[in-house]
Amino acid sequence: MQKALTYAADHADQQVSELLEWLRIPSVSADSNHAGDVKKAAEWLAKNLRDIGMAHVEIMPTPGHPVVYAEHIRDAQLPTVLVYGHYDVQPPDPLELWDSPPFEPVIKDGLIYARGSCDDKGQAFMHVKAAEAWIKGEGQLPLNLKFIIEGEEEVGSVHLSQFLEANKQKLAADIVVISDTSLFAEDVPSITYGLRGLAYVEVELTGPNRDLHSGVYGGGVHNPLNELCRLITNLHDADHRVTLPGFYDAVRHLSDEERAGFASLPFDEAGWKAEVDVAETRTEAGYTLLEGITARPTLDLNGIWGGYQGEGAKTVLPAKAGAKISCRLVPDQQPDDVAEMLRKYFEENTPSTMKLRFTALHGGHAAMVDIHHPAMQAASKAMEGVYGRKPVFTREGGSIPIVADFKNILGLNTVLMGFGLDSDAIHSPNEKYGIDRFHKGIEASVRFMEAFANR
Amino acid sequence: MQKALTYAADHADQQVSELLEWLRIPSVSADSNHAGDVKKAAEWLAKNLRDIGMAHVEIMPTPGHPVVYAEHIRDAQLPTVLVYGHYDVQPPDPLELWDSPPFEPVIKDGLIYARGSCDDKGQAFMHVKAAEAWIKGEGQLPLNLKFIIEGEEEVGSVHLSQFLEANKQKLAADIVVISDTSLFAEDVPSITYGLRGLAYVEVELTGPNRDLHSGVYGGGVHNPLNELCRLITNLHDADHRVTLPGFYDAVRHLSDEERAGFASLPFDEAGWKAEVDVAETRTEAGYTLLEGITARPTLDLNGIWGGYQGEGAKTVLPAKAGAKISCRLVPDQQPDDVAEMLRKYFEENTPSTMKLRFTALHGGHAAMVDIHHPAMQAASKAMEGVYGRKPVFTREGGSIPIVADFKNILGLNTVLMGFGLDSDAIHSPNEKYGIDRFHKGIEASVRFMEAFANR
Repeated sequence: MQKALTYAADHADQQVSELLEWLRIPSVSADSNHAGDVKKAAEWLAKNLRDIGMAHVEIMPTPGHPVVYAEHIRDAQLPTVLVYGHYDVQPPDPLELWDSPPFEPVIKDGLIYARGSCDDKGQAFMHVKAAEAWIKGEGQLPLNLKFIIEGEEEVGSVHLSQFLEANKQKLAADIVVISDTSLFAEDVPSITYGLRGLAYVEVELTGPNRDLHSGVYGGGVHNPLNELCRLITNLHDADHRVTLPGFYDAVRHLSDEERAGFASLPFDEAGWKAEVDVAETRTEAGYTLLEGITARPTLDLNGIWGGYQGEGAKTVLPAKAGAKISCRLVPDQQPDDVAEMLRKYFEENTPSTMKLRFTALHGGHAAMVDIHHPAMQAASKAMEGVYGRKPVFTREGGSIPIVADFKNILGLNTVLMGFGLDSDAIHSPNEKYGIDRFHKGIEASVRFMEAFANR
Repeated sequence: MQKALTYAADHADQQVSELLEWLRIPSVSADSNHAGDVKKAAEWLAKNLRDIGMAHVEIMPTPGHPVVYAEHIRDAQLPTVLVYGHYDVQPPDPLELWDSPPFEPVIKDGLIYARGSCDDKGQAFMHVKAAEAWIKGEGQLPLNLKFIIEGEEEVGSVHLSQFLEANKQKLAADIVVISDTSLFAEDVPSITYGLRGLAYVEVELTGPNRDLHSGVYGGGVHNPLNELCRLITNLHDADHRVTLPGFYDAVRHLSDEERAGFASLPFDEAGWKAEVDVAETRTEAGYTLLEGITARPTLDLNGIWGGYQGEGAKTVLPAKAGAKISCRLVPDQQPDDVAEMLRKYFEENTPSTMKLRFTALHGGHAAMVDIHHPAMQAASKAMEGVYGRKPVFTREGGSIPIVADFKNILGLNTVLMGFGLDSDAIHSPNEKYGIDRFHKGIEASVRFMEAFANR
């Protein structure tokens, strides 16, 4: 493995410059105007995979954005690692809050500022460069390697499960590895064993058939904005618990051991609050902040709109009001069930003064991985090799629905070996990723392949 | 007067074509990008007033948009009528809902479709053409006439009260006449004796210092959108009454006589609902629909925004949420007092998890005019002359704050002789005004001048 590590170290600058090139392609999957850029990002990656020596590389179409697939089978007797990642990125808005253009990467204080630098181009690319280190440095990989890098993760991986169904044979492997999560803290190597799921819906209320003068009609026509606020407000109680009927029924309760584990983690609550500049946190009664953001389900508004949002005062009584609502889920809540609970709630509570349009946008299952799995132990050894200390096992509040799909469709467990930080501001203006973490990630991937090959 | 009426009838087509010319100027006072157009609309009107023979015309500057002033003093012994109107218009958005461009007037089935056709260019212009009919038809006006046509009515007439203060002498008159209200129904001549006031505010809540990933922070950071909805929802109770402390304290109660008067009006509730396509109305408990929309105070959201409003699903926990809120007021509620009640409410109820920015945008007093005033009787006679039947006296839900200012600053009562219809969709897409009502309005103005001169 030493030659691979040396090769990786010797090519540190080139690894970064290649990543910057990829980050310049605005592969925003949610915005149909960027469909061409998404395709370009896929082609760029396919070329890079060929250049490093992956035996077989192809861009596989889906009904939406394509999947970049690559494989290198050294010996059928050796274990096979399937690396998953995504080359699409979140929309960059609000643009005016970026200090530098989201798709013109800037390096400052060892950080790469660009949309996708951390989520997930930067992290997915670490494994590509680790494979290169083995192939070019050692002359061969220590095991069989497959890549499946998709272009629809930020829009709910809408076509990936059917892609897995259709390619079970091709994707056969022993373990999935994903780097799309965070370190517990900059200096705390960590491996994520739990993820939250997601149920995302959109609601629109229509009252009158047009925007009305609030003086002429106010007091007679029911205002969709006021009513939407009421329907949303009634989804929480004073203890900040979700009141949606049935919402907690399937929630797997936290064991005392697990809660003790959370309590033992070096979680800097004051630093966490300072980093987002809130005087006070807001968590479901009876749970700690760390539990609230990683192991308990939530219901949040992601967007709301209606009426006049421009300059000055327009005395309008609007015809329509809309909102995007999403729930973070935990085992064993089912995304479709929660979406249906929301549909039922809005259908039963929308008053006869208006009409409802309800759309379930997408969902994803929560996931848990056994920390005693040999691959988790190999990852632990790799992280220890990089950081000189054993990693902690944590849960994350974000969702990677695909992890549940890998389990359900391919029967594969997933190792979540992420190097992000909360401060990387993924999904926000000025997303960034540390160059040092990028390189540590490459080394960790090199070491993981070795450790898992010798499991 | 016969010659004036004949002149008006003979020039019907020209009156319309001149109005269309004026409507082509997008004088949107709320949008600073249209400042130049607002000025152009003022200059167009000034020229028209000179052309019809008004002795003195000038465009008088204000700290905002200018006022067009004109006067024609025939004889100091004669009574003086001061006509008020406004040449600015509401923003036209949402543009996509217009069947024809808002500033390219189209005539269909006897209706002029354009922003401002009814509110208020079309109605203000009737008096200009009535003056022309007297001057050109009879050779002279029957009384002294002054025009004050402003450019800031749609943004709360922010500078008009100080303009009145500064020009008391110049504006001296016996009565103010305004056509900026509606007929009770197409075939029901009516004179408005009551108007609602307005208190309009904007609220913004800021939670975290940036938009956050709802998975990473959800369950820990208090969501400004959810909280804004809660604060707004708590402003009404289950009886649809406003719960803002003190809100109803100054409300002048409706007398039994007045309520009987409302009950006797030919109000077509089914038609009203059908026209805006609502299955059910929503009025404060204990009051009729007609009372709710004309004689009772309200609190409505005019706009709300925050988070992601684009295509697809963005899992963001937004940093900010904002809303525009306005109250329609009745005698004797004070706009500033109500705005302060709202400020107090939001300041006292915004939780320590977020910051509040509260802005009182503008307000206007409610107004009532004595129906026994000689000018009201002259207006009644004029309407009867046009329609062949006595007009009904009604109240309107809209606000013309300036009516209270005329009373308080100039000591003048106001005759509200409007020819709009609720179906004219003022403040909405496809605003329109009936050509027949435009001409009836010109005739009514001609007859009013005669009747008030001989009062």
